[in-house]
Amino acid sequence: MTKANVIKGNAVIGQSGGPTAVINESLVGVVESISRFAEVGKLLGARHGVRGIKEEQFIPLSRLGKRKLEAVALTPAAALGSSRDKPDEAYCEDILNVFKKHDVRYFFYIGGNDSADTARIVNEMADASGYELRVFHIPKTIDNDLSVTDHCPGYGSAARFVASAFMGDDRDVMSLPGIKINVVMGRNAGWLTAASSLGRQDENDGPHLVYVPEAAFSLKGFIDDVDKIYGRLGRCQIAVSEGIVDESGQPVAVALAEKLGHRVERDSHGNVQLSGSGVLGDFLADYIKSELGKSRYQKLRVRADTFGYLQRSFAGYASPVDQREARMVGRKAVEYAMAGNTDGSVAITRAKGKTYRAGYKQAKLADVARVTKELPRSYINKAGNHITDAFRTYALPLTGGLPTIGKLF
Amino acid sequence: MTKANVIKGNAVIGQSGGPTAVINESLVGVVESISRFAEVGKLLGARHGVRGIKEEQFIPLSRLGKRKLEAVALTPAAALGSSRDKPDEAYCEDILNVFKKHDVRYFFYIGGNDSADTARIVNEMADASGYELRVFHIPKTIDNDLSVTDHCPGYGSAARFVASAFMGDDRDVMSLPGIKINVVMGRNAGWLTAASSLGRQDENDGPHLVYVPEAAFSLKGFIDDVDKIYGRLGRCQIAVSEGIVDESGQPVAVALAEKLGHRVERDSHGNVQLSGSGVLGDFLADYIKSELGKSRYQKLRVRADTFGYLQRSFAGYASPVDQREARMVGRKAVEYAMAGNTDGSVAITRAKGKTYRAGYKQAKLADVARVTKELPRSYINKAGNHITDAFRTYALPLTGGLPTIGKLF
Repeated sequence: MTKANVIKGNAVIGQSGGPTAVINESLVGVVESISRFAEVGKLLGARHGVRGIKEEQFIPLSRLGKRKLEAVALTPAAALGSSRDKPDEAYCEDILNVFKKHDVRYFFYIGGNDSADTARIVNEMADASGYELRVFHIPKTIDNDLSVTDHCPGYGSAARFVASAFMGDDRDVMSLPGIKINVVMGRNAGWLTAASSLGRQDENDGPHLVYVPEAAFSLKGFIDDVDKIYGRLGRCQIAVSEGIVDESGQPVAVALAEKLGHRVERDSHGNVQLSGSGVLGDFLADYIKSELGKSRYQKLRVRADTFGYLQRSFAGYASPVDQREARMVGRKAVEYAMAGNTDGSVAITRAKGKTYRAGYKQAKLADVARVTKELPRSYINKAGNHITDAFRTYALPLTGGLPTIGKLF
Repeated sequence: MTKANVIKGNAVIGQSGGPTAVINESLVGVVESISRFAEVGKLLGARHGVRGIKEEQFIPLSRLGKRKLEAVALTPAAALGSSRDKPDEAYCEDILNVFKKHDVRYFFYIGGNDSADTARIVNEMADASGYELRVFHIPKTIDNDLSVTDHCPGYGSAARFVASAFMGDDRDVMSLPGIKINVVMGRNAGWLTAASSLGRQDENDGPHLVYVPEAAFSLKGFIDDVDKIYGRLGRCQIAVSEGIVDESGQPVAVALAEKLGHRVERDSHGNVQLSGSGVLGDFLADYIKSELGKSRYQKLRVRADTFGYLQRSFAGYASPVDQREARMVGRKAVEYAMAGNTDGSVAITRAKGKTYRAGYKQAKLADVARVTKELPRSYINKAGNHITDAFRTYALPLTGGLPTIGKLF
């Protein structure tokens, strides 16, 4: 590899936003790749993202052994600690000053679109002050909602978890028949909820209904849907995104929480806190009981599970495809950063053809920052209550394969 | 193998109660073992347990291919369908009459202690009427609360799931610090909640607090415990059994549900329905926020997850040890049934010594029926808010090994 464009100095890496099962693969990808460049003096890990940079809370990462690194790579959630801070101009100025103080010339930031935006601002400030800083955003999010990239590291593992959970739970609901609601993470986009359908073998398999934020949700339509499926099969398994919205665009979970007198939390990015509560699932279960349990069906068994944080941090069940790709985006970020005075984000591409094959390319920070990619309409059925085969073709390879299911009837 | 004591006739197998990840291993163990006995004409699978017998809803299981059987073995939840029916005398009489009609001489019933009791009643009725019937109960329950047996098939897989979930979630809570409550299944016994602690490497790892039904729970003590841990570590991960009881012995979840106006469901065995709702976790999270979030700690991040049915039915993550043993108890039931005019339950034994090794023995139906085995006091710490190393020694081998965790600080 030519080192002609490598600038002397130190490097900082940070992790941001909600954890994933493979966010440390990307960290390790950067650590192992950057160690090959003698021009880079120290690689500093920032504790808890931008906050750790501002407060100069660094962990030296250059001398970690292979064994330690591989153990970290397999561990879910940000090993450096994460942060939900949304840096303003002054905060970014502080970051840049810390970089100057420590002669930091490379900055790698693993995160979602908010993190890409932070990276963009710091990068522009460095440019404006004539300080050579190579800034790379490394994508991660279970939400799969970043633009440019074909899919996001972290999504495949979360999709594998959700699909496997629905496969086993569908057998559970067959075994003790009733109506089962499973609430899946995903504030603005239905990518992860859609993954609930990936293990389906035929029309009788659950989930029988899938509700995503991209299709307006009505209680009336919901009850009609459930009634139809339950009447036909004697059971009904339902996937509901925590972020479903009513016809007016208001999140159903927020309206509910307010009605029940819960305080609705918002993070520093203005995002409403939807996870870590069973309110939506419990409400929908009670609603089904009251609408269908008294009149049409006696002794109706209705249950709700809210999958919660397990979807992003469950240990020992990551997608092998996702692990590999998350490692690669870390390596690629280093490779791109060493190619010249440049900045950007790493995007995954997909080769055309029947066999799944991933590639990598450099994207612009501004194209990734603050943009959210919704589930395209072609992945949602006409009725707005299920997912199409086109989605399955897209997402199944990312899970690295799903469990075997055998049936007797 | 001597076939001197094998009686000619057909066999019935059924599955009962809450599913596990390996309940079909036991089913397949019976199917493959019994096929070696030419004296057994047909092996009939009862759809949905005792109900399927009463209604003569049978699936022929004798001619299933190896590949099909192995796929079924890997599939969570009862492949024949399960049942929560609690047969009374008349119901058992009906069962016996169906057996006589179909010349059934072998009855295998996979289930918990209620199922062992049903098996016992049917067995006594057959004896009383002079009809030779060999009845075997095959243990299964994620609750691990059956007597005689060292542990229950199904528990190891559920324990593996819970331990892995806590390991990943602990890293999540480290990464975005706060207080996290995870509600674990287990109505009367804390075995599964105790498994939350199996992945701990040191004192700083979560879960930092573990509450089981065997130790009385007080809100005051709870808040003091949480305050202490959070003050020391800046985070606190908590395992709470869904079945925790207050000082008067009343389940906290039931008291809450009644207070909130929810209808409290009971099954035909009189068991209160605790799962499939996030009420307990949400209440405890709100309580911490109101007690600690306003006064002592600003912007306190508190979240609750209720693990729900995933614990018993998640696909693709069963314990290999549990799978093997669940297969073996099915095989052993056939072996014992063929040894003479006998009846009973299959129990797992554990060889003394440092290396885990399981054995099997025949137990009496009456010793297993209706008895619940609680977590011994030696597995709970003095303060009643954590689990001891003795439990770890007991339970860790059953999980088949836990994921690798690597840390940077």
